[in-house]
Amino acid sequence: MKNSFFSRFTPKEPKFFPLLKQLSEVLVSSSAVLVESMNYDRADERDSYYKRIKDLEREGDRLAHRIFDELGTTFITPFDREDIQALASHMDDVIDGINSCAKRISIYKPRPIGESGKELSLLVQQEADCICKAMDELERFRKNPAQLREYCTRLHDIENQADDVYEHFIKRLFEEEKDCIEIIKIKEIMQILEKTTDSAEHVGKVLRTLIVKYA
Amino acid sequence: MKNSFFSRFTPKEPKFFPLLKQLSEVLVSSSAVLVESMNYDRADERDSYYKRIKDLEREGDRLAHRIFDELGTTFITPFDREDIQALASHMDDVIDGINSCAKRISIYKPRPIGESGKELSLLVQQEADCICKAMDELERFRKNPAQLREYCTRLHDIENQADDVYEHFIKRLFEEEKDCIEIIKIKEIMQILEKTTDSAEHVGKVLRTLIVKYA
Amino acid sequence: MKNSFFSRFTPKEPKFFPLLKQLSEVLVSSSAVLVESMNYDRADERDSYYKRIKDLEREGDRLAHRIFDELGTTFITPFDREDIQALASHMDDVIDGINSCAKRISIYKPRPIGESGKELSLLVQQEADCICKAMDELERFRKNPAQLREYCTRLHDIENQADDVYEHFIKRLFEEEKDCIEIIKIKEIMQILEKTTDSAEHVGKVLRTLIVKYA
Repeated sequence: MKNSFFSRFTPKEPKFFPLLKQLSEVLVSSSAVLVESMNYDRADERDSYYKRIKDLEREGDRLAHRIFDELGTTFITPFDREDIQALASHMDDVIDGINSCAKRISIYKPRPIGESGKELSLLVQQEADCICKAMDELERFRKNPAQLREYCTRLHDIENQADDVYEHFIKRLFEEEKDCIEIIKIKEIMQILEKTTDSAEHVGKVLRTLIVKYA
Repeated sequence: MKNSFFSRFTPKEPKFFPLLKQLSEVLVSSSAVLVESMNYDRADERDSYYKRIKDLEREGDRLAHRIFDELGTTFITPFDREDIQALASHMDDVIDGINSCAKRISIYKPRPIGESGKELSLLVQQEADCICKAMDELERFRKNPAQLREYCTRLHDIENQADDVYEHFIKRLFEEEKDCIEIIKIKEIMQILEKTTDSAEHVGKVLRTLIVKYA
Repeated sequence: MKNSFFSRFTPKEPKFFPLLKQLSEVLVSSSAVLVESMNYDRADERDSYYKRIKDLEREGDRLAHRIFDELGTTFITPFDREDIQALASHMDDVIDGINSCAKRISIYKPRPIGESGKELSLLVQQEADCICKAMDELERFRKNPAQLREYCTRLHDIENQADDVYEHFIKRLFEEEKDCIEIIKIKEIMQILEKTTDSAEHVGKVLRTLIVKYA
């Protein structure tokens, strides 16, 4: 874990890019499992999806901490230290959000969540895919930021869509659902999903900062 | 958006002060609309207030991001970079809190919220006014910090008042309201208002740090 | 509060260690009062425990702010500025969490919380003790990090235990409790306790960073 004296001074260490890419791939896997899980409503099915997502969450955690450790021991980094830290920790937040959602579905045992749950988790998956592609741009956006800029716009747009889906859903939930305990359960689950799309947009905001600073 | 080579090195760029002032004015407007909205309980009235607050929230967002972009491209700043960033992002949090509150009133359609909602939003407005006046002190507190110090104290006091109003309200809500769904709705709305007064006090804490560092 | 020109340049000021230690002692006291409070269910008893915890919370707040002020005016610090700041602010978060929990028990007046509440608050107390001992290692872990590393592992393990206690409790709460208002009250209180154990683990994460950077 400790770098030798020399390796600390090797300029522009490229190791952060593959680590960030790997983290984004864990995010993609995790969002794909979440989308798939939305088709299953039996307790044992939900538990088994939660287990898979939890394993991915731990893998993401390990990767994020490796990035933080490298930041603490590397002298020269390709971008400002806090930008790399922010990229890793916001990606980790998205993975955490997916995990929180699956966990609550498994322990709250709500009634089937329906179309809006599927819609929101599909939006999370689209954001994950977009973030993963954006990681490939980190090495080249200084020369041509157009593609990275487009991913930022896309993340912003998806988040707006998620807001609308969520608002519409909650309005209907309060109008139609009369079982107070179901409201508590489902509202919290959907709120977590909506916050997860926010975290994904935060990744986009950091990418936008990088363009402003470096391109 | 990009500064020329020279402008990056112009010392102590004063542009941050007008931007922070503008952001605080958006905050003042937004809190005034919130206070006014508390007098109206019909769904269409609530929706139209939410719309106005949402527009202000977007304006605040644009201003905050302009400040972050300037921070990323300006070499010399009047205070530590992270203090300017914190001022802008905490003001943005207050504006976000006001927006969250109005949004929930519009989509949850709770019963009329009553006097405590008005009281709390008046406190948010007082905090906003105080923050806006404090922004005028940024250029002069190094010589005489007394006025800025007074604003910090006032923000702290208002937040304590808000705590008391909130605690008292929630106690009574659980004693008197028996409709569980109304409890869910109104508790969340009041909780957001109370957190919004916290965010305003965070602005005061950053200002206090500035006095410690620079006065 | 203001340091003289010379004191700002005295290298490796040791004053941060005693301040961090004091803050950890406030945390230990506060967690001990919380554990004791869990044996009492009458409203007046709960109120008096909340009062004691609130006083400790204010003391913690004062200490944390003193640390932040010192950071703003000290030129050379024993570790990176942001690590000291993170240690103080995460300890403060744990103290805040304890206070939030006691406050809600006092104002929500839930039915007796039972064994799981006691279990979770005992875990918070164990974390507090562990953090307090870890503060003694700050001056010596560079030479021998084994002990500090062990405390980090312990904090991580306790947090995992807390997760399990919480999940198990919430599962049973939704299965057994049919009074929706009690669910709202107790779920929120237990959620705050569980988040408090997370904040304690965050202290451990910062300590781990220190080992990576400095040992």
